[in-house]
Amino acid sequence: MAKNAKISNAVIKRLPRYRRYLHELDKKGVDKISSAELSRLIGYTASQIRQDLNNFGGFGQQGYGYNVKDLHDEISAILGLDQVYHMVIVGGGNLGHAIAGYTNSYKQGFQVEAIFEVDPEAIGTEIGGVPVLSSDDLVEYVEEHKIDIGVICTPKDVAQEMADKLCFAGVKGIWNFAQTDLEVPAHVAMENVHLSDNLYALTFHMNRK
Amino acid sequence: MAKNAKISNAVIKRLPRYRRYLHELDKKGVDKISSAELSRLIGYTASQIRQDLNNFGGFGQQGYGYNVKDLHDEISAILGLDQVYHMVIVGGGNLGHAIAGYTNSYKQGFQVEAIFEVDPEAIGTEIGGVPVLSSDDLVEYVEEHKIDIGVICTPKDVAQEMADKLCFAGVKGIWNFAQTDLEVPAHVAMENVHLSDNLYALTFHMNRK
Repeated sequence: MAKNAKISNAVIKRLPRYRRYLHELDKKGVDKISSAELSRLIGYTASQIRQDLNNFGGFGQQGYGYNVKDLHDEISAILGLDQVYHMVIVGGGNLGHAIAGYTNSYKQGFQVEAIFEVDPEAIGTEIGGVPVLSSDDLVEYVEEHKIDIGVICTPKDVAQEMADKLCFAGVKGIWNFAQTDLEVPAHVAMENVHLSDNLYALTFHMNRK
Repeated sequence: MAKNAKISNAVIKRLPRYRRYLHELDKKGVDKISSAELSRLIGYTASQIRQDLNNFGGFGQQGYGYNVKDLHDEISAILGLDQVYHMVIVGGGNLGHAIAGYTNSYKQGFQVEAIFEVDPEAIGTEIGGVPVLSSDDLVEYVEEHKIDIGVICTPKDVAQEMADKLCFAGVKGIWNFAQTDLEVPAHVAMENVHLSDNLYALTFHMNRK
């Protein structure tokens, strides 16, 4: 796929979901699947699926469907999942712990190398084999270890400062769990996880049922 | 607003973000704001903002803008945030801890009443004042305490079973953090938090910079 192709955010958000289902199908030994079958599984219309996948040159063959393994691998490559990402987590509270454990246990291709904290009692300990280091050493560590992604799990009042340090030190992406919007330079990618936005969508739907 | 009005998921996803900014403005003592000013703050176009808010009858006045406090409260009511929700968390790992702490500390209107676990060593303890109970007692507890929302923080292989129990016991909403799609009855609302989908969107954008 051309690196400069314009793909809508809505499509990008759906790709991981396709990948997840294709992974499950591949594990079950399924070789090929039609857009109609994918539609029944995933819940998008078959036409939506064909349109989404056409964004990437269209992997399907008329009358045959999609090759499950090939499509999974192609989507992985499109998402940048054919390489390893080195990460640090800033903020060693429960959320930081959870993200570190989740990532290192379940996310192939992602490696949390260190957790940064301000609490003197936490500094010097380990969480699931990951060292907890002082936030004072964040910039130096990120530079030296060529860290790709910084995960922000701090209270919101220090989140921008930590993002600034991470960007200064050269990360290519910020994964932000703090409850505030952050500014990063144009060459740095950022995704915000606003858990409460998701929770409020839930209450909205609960009140409409 | 009419309960049966059709509002797109994209708009619903943006409402919590409007609310977040309006809350900050209100705290700073700002009384009114134009769609152009909101646009500069939030990053959506002014026309997008007017269109979104028109879905709910349109709160703005030509030449005046929006009343910050009124708009905040209206959006809160639309999202169902003018009431209290009683919650349980199923799964007492780091993520369950993090969600419990985050919710009870920061989310007015949401109260985590109990955490359910299968680990005999955890059962009977407390996490930040919240009791950890046996998953065997989940259905009875949810029924007796009129729990509104069940939060699933379990491994994915037991997530559907726990969702079934929660729905059977009468929750109105499921907030799912397990890495799998769940099926719930039509009268139950569900929101899935797929952290890895968000992470993969980040790597996608990192590789396009």
